[in-house]
Parts: sequence; C-alpha cells; structure tokens
Amino acid sequence: MKNTILLQNRPTGTPELSDFKFTSEEVPELRDGQMLLETKYVSVDPYLRGRMNDTKSYVPPFELHKPITSAIVAEVKESKNDKFSKGDYVSGMLAWKREQVSDGKGLHKVDPDQAPLSAYLGILGMTGMTAYFGLTDIGKPKKGETLLVSGAAGAVGSVVGQIGKIMGLRVVGIAGSDEKIEMIKSEFGFDEGINYKTTSDMKKAVGAACPDGVDVYFDNVGGEISDAVLFHINKFARMVICGAISVYNETSLPKGLSVQPFLIKNSALMQGFIVGNYAERFPEAMQKLSGWLKEGKLNYEETIVEGFENIPQAFLDLFSVKNKGKMVVKV
Amino acid sequence: MKNTILLQNRPTGTPELSDFKFTSEEVPELRDGQMLLETKYVSVDPYLRGRMNDTKSYVPPFELHKPITSAIVAEVKESKNDKFSKGDYVSGMLAWKREQVSDGKGLHKVDPDQAPLSAYLGILGMTGMTAYFGLTDIGKPKKGETLLVSGAAGAVGSVVGQIGKIMGLRVVGIAGSDEKIEMIKSEFGFDEGINYKTTSDMKKAVGAACPDGVDVYFDNVGGEISDAVLFHINKFARMVICGAISVYNETSLPKGLSVQPFLIKNSALMQGFIVGNYAERFPEAMQKLSGWLKEGKLNYEETIVEGFENIPQAFLDLFSVKNKGKMVVKV
Repeated sequence: MKNTILLQNRPTGTPELSDFKFTSEEVPELRDGQMLLETKYVSVDPYLRGRMNDTKSYVPPFELHKPITSAIVAEVKESKNDKFSKGDYVSGMLAWKREQVSDGKGLHKVDPDQAPLSAYLGILGMTGMTAYFGLTDIGKPKKGETLLVSGAAGAVGSVVGQIGKIMGLRVVGIAGSDEKIEMIKSEFGFDEGINYKTTSDMKKAVGAACPDGVDVYFDNVGGEISDAVLFHINKFARMVICGAISVYNETSLPKGLSVQPFLIKNSALMQGFIVGNYAERFPEAMQKLSGWLKEGKLNYEETIVEGFENIPQAFLDLFSVKNKGKMVVKV
Repeated sequence: MKNTILLQNRPTGTPELSDFKFTSEEVPELRDGQMLLETKYVSVDPYLRGRMNDTKSYVPPFELHKPITSAIVAEVKESKNDKFSKGDYVSGMLAWKREQVSDGKGLHKVDPDQAPLSAYLGILGMTGMTAYFGLTDIGKPKKGETLLVSGAAGAVGSVVGQIGKIMGLRVVGIAGSDEKIEMIKSEFGFDEGINYKTTSDMKKAVGAACPDGVDVYFDNVGGEISDAVLFHINKFARMVICGAISVYNETSLPKGLSVQPFLIKNSALMQGFIVGNYAERFPEAMQKLSGWLKEGKLNYEETIVEGFENIPQAFLDLFSVKNKGKMVVKV
C-alpha cells in the first residue's frame, strides 16, 4: 500500500495532482528514544503552497521527491520514548505518511477528552493561535472599533471575527458566497458580511459596511480586495497581514495599489507575521482559546475529508475555496 | 506691492507657476492679543503638494483662492500679545504673506543665538523632528543593524542617516546624483550610497550595498525604488513610510509590487506617520537634536532661495530635486 506522499514537481501557478506522488516507504525499526506514530488527522493549509516554491521564505522550501510535512495529529502505537506512551495522541509538524517514526521533538500531547482531535489542528492549533496573536498583538483592538476580516469564513478568519466580538468590536467579514456570509453572521456572530463575488464595487461595499471606517483589517487574502480596503482605513489603522491566498499561485510578482500613500495619509501600520514568532506565548493562547471554547464563546467549522489518498486533492481544494472553516483530512 | 500668495488652481499632476497667484492684501489693525509678524524664512516641503488636492488627508486641503500656509520663521514687529515682544522671532504654520497678524496660537519663540533662523525650519524644525521620531519610534534601530534611507540627500533623509550613525548602525543612502552620493558620505557620514539614476538594476544595487539585508528602511520616495528594497528586507524589518515624493504628482493612483507577500515572508512592518503625531514629545526631540548639533555630531545642508516672489518656484523645484538638503526661501 502506498503510504507516503512526495513533492514530485514544484508547481508553476496553481498546483495540480501530478505535482504529488504516492509511494511506499518502509517504516524503520524503533531505536531508543523513538516512537511509532499512526497518522489520524492531517492539516492542509494555504501556506504550504509557498513551501513548494524554491525560494527563501520564513520556512525552508520542501525538498523535491521528499515527503511533504504539515501539522498532524497522530496516535502513538509503540514507544521507546520516556515522554510518550502507547495510546497517547500527539500533535506537531509531521510527514504525509500513514506511519512514521519520531523522536518526539516538537510534538506535544493532545487530549481527546478536552476537544475533538481535529480541533488541535484548527481552533486549538496553529489556526486558532494565528488568529489570536495576529489580532491581539498586531491588531491591538479597542472596544467599539471596527474590525474587518477577509477570508472571514476560513479557518483563521472565523476565529478572528469571534475573538473580535468577545473583545467588543464591530466585526465585518468578507467571503465568497452568500452561504458563507450567512454562516459568519449566524454561527460566528459577525455583524455584517460582504460577498466579494457578487459585489461589483468592493470599494463602495467596504465603505457601506464600515460607515465609521476600518480600524483593524485582518487580511488573509491580499490582492484587489485588500486594495479596496485601503480607501476606508482610519487614522492609526492596523492592518494585520496574515495571508495572501489570492496571489499565492501567481507566477509573476503580483502588483497592486501602492500602499505607501495610504499609510502616510492615515499614519497606518501594516505588519506581516507567522504564528511561530509567538512560540513562547503558545500556552497563553491555548489557555484563552480553550477557555472561550468551553464557555461556548467560540464556534468553529471544519471540512473533514476522509482518506489518506485524498490529501493532495484537499490541499488543491483550498484554492477554489471548497472548504468551510478548517480543512482537515481524516486518515 | 504683491504681498500674498494664493492657491489659484488645484494642480493636475505636476504643479505649475500658474497654479499660484500673487495678490495684495491689506494688513488689518492689531487688536488686543495680536501681533504683527514679518516673514523672514519660508519652508517649502513636498507634503504641501498633497494639501493642494481636494481630498481627505491628515491635514485638510488648502482652500482655493486663499493663501497657502507652511512652516515660517517671522519677526515680531509690533505686539499686543503678552507672550511675545517686539523683536522676538517665532516659528509655526503661517501664511505665504510678507506681513500678517497672528494671535500667537501654535507659534513658539526661536533663538537666533542658538542656531541660524533657517535651522528652525530644518534640522531643529519639522524635518529634524520627522527624522528623529520616524527613525527612533517606528524604525526602532539596534546597534549593528543596516539602515537604508531613500531621499538620503534630502532634508529629512540626511538627518535620518546621521542619527543612524550616532546610534551605531551601518547606513546606506539612495540619492539621484553622484554629487549627492559624495555629499551623504563626506558630510553626513553614510557608509555607502546608491545613485538610482545611473543604476540599471536597483534590486541588484540594494543587494550589493546591503549584503546583510535591510533591517530598517526609511522611505521618503516610494515607487520603484521602494519596490526594489522589498527583495532585501530582513526578518522583522521595519519600513518607516515618511514620504512618497515619487508618486505625489501622479494623476491616477500609483501601482507597484504587492507588499503583502513580502511582509508575511519576513514578519515585516510598514508604518506611515506624520510628525504631528508626536507633538507631545517635541521638546524631547528638540533637546536631542540641538544637543547633537552643538556637539558637532549633526551637519545639515540648506538650499536658500532669496525673495518672496520665488516661493512658488522653490516649491516646484522640489519635484525636480534641485535642492540639496532643506529648501528654504529667505524673504
């Protein structure tokens, strides 16, 4: 049985199934300190696209003909490691393999009684923490301000909006279907939504949805949507640059409005980040997020695809936004 | 004698002399609390261009057929104001008039024995403080880092570079002639310079001049120069967006590289500002700048144009960069 997924080609533009290759790799014998892991849930995320290019970035590129890695929840099947026992569940960056050997570095235990295992890849994992740190540390929201979120129905965006509501903000979301707009309002408590696919004039639509201007813009998409937002930022606005999914597959460098004049006019800030910058503060975020989850203040959506063999397709589907909320593959 | 300069037309693109009108206005009688001022030095600055458009910005637009205002040093000729006496020199935002009446609001005394009067429009005025606050508060430079300055031979840029050297940075400047490159190195202590007019590949040139990458970019120009810098920013880079003179006269919204992917890749920050944001801290900046000036750690260049009638032309000359350092008109 094919048990490993390799990066076969570096995609040009939009990735295709042929960029991935299924292969069989033997699982080595355990040595002292190691354990055998069985993959349960695999996170597929837009940022993986960047790692498929051979360019310097915040994380090194994937190697060609080597397994792809992403956030994974796995079960410990055998352990020669003091810190983990058979039957434990762990989460961390692991390879797209059905089974693999690990020395436990960078992995931590997750508790299936506290939350469903898949949640540790989403709201209690990287996506939840990305939302938490981006919004609180860069966005610095103040009660009563207007928060605008692009990719609002996505894994990160939906959490950002809910934390915004917890913090007392007016929250407006941008998403790509009426169904998603309905969802962010009814499930996630957004005050208003903009369907960018049916809106002919985004600039006008943002102005109408944010009559007091935008104080915090949490940006998951970049591109023309974010250009339109620039016209409505308030003085001292903070733009949290979390993702730019709209341009990840472009083969030439994307262009847009020059942001500098807008930044000067409004004494505004744009800041990019990755969640890893906050590694030392992960416990703080986990405590906040799991607290809000228990209190019923946070909802989350997942799109769970079944089957190891469907991991590449699930990743591709991110770019046609077939998912609602966090996209996870159950193996 | 024509004693007042009005904004006659809102310029489209590059301003022209015909956008200004010289006229005669009567100087009213002094009432209690007022004083009569005689203009001595007039500051012309790129940011005035923005105020000539009829668009919302950080300062309201100039009114058509009304006098233009900018930073001015004037002598008190008569005073019915308790805080100012005949013979005092004051600085503040005043009208382009040979003489005018003021109630003293927003003006402060300047001392011709401490520094030449024109310096209060430059290194000890808005430009010096712009350099100080932008670099220290947004740029947050750390000893040993690389600071890149665009518009390096200009009023603000030349001060930024010198403060950078005082703070122990490696400082690289971008300017538009070999003469200016020579000047920023010999007079202002920059470690290296790039003449963007004779460089065929700015991206390469920035890389060569900043082999350790760019930690702080102090941006006075925007446009293609700033696009080229994006390829060389380091992780956690701070881009201080002070001006965008290269695009101020464009009649359509300027476009450039999408900055978002670069900001994400490098967890980098871009922040716009105006010196007015720091009004409460002006005394701190004045103390630092005048201290450094007395210690001989700060040099400055001025281009002093003579004659009230030459104010509009001096302003126009900013955009063909005929000035070295601060452009001031002596009346």
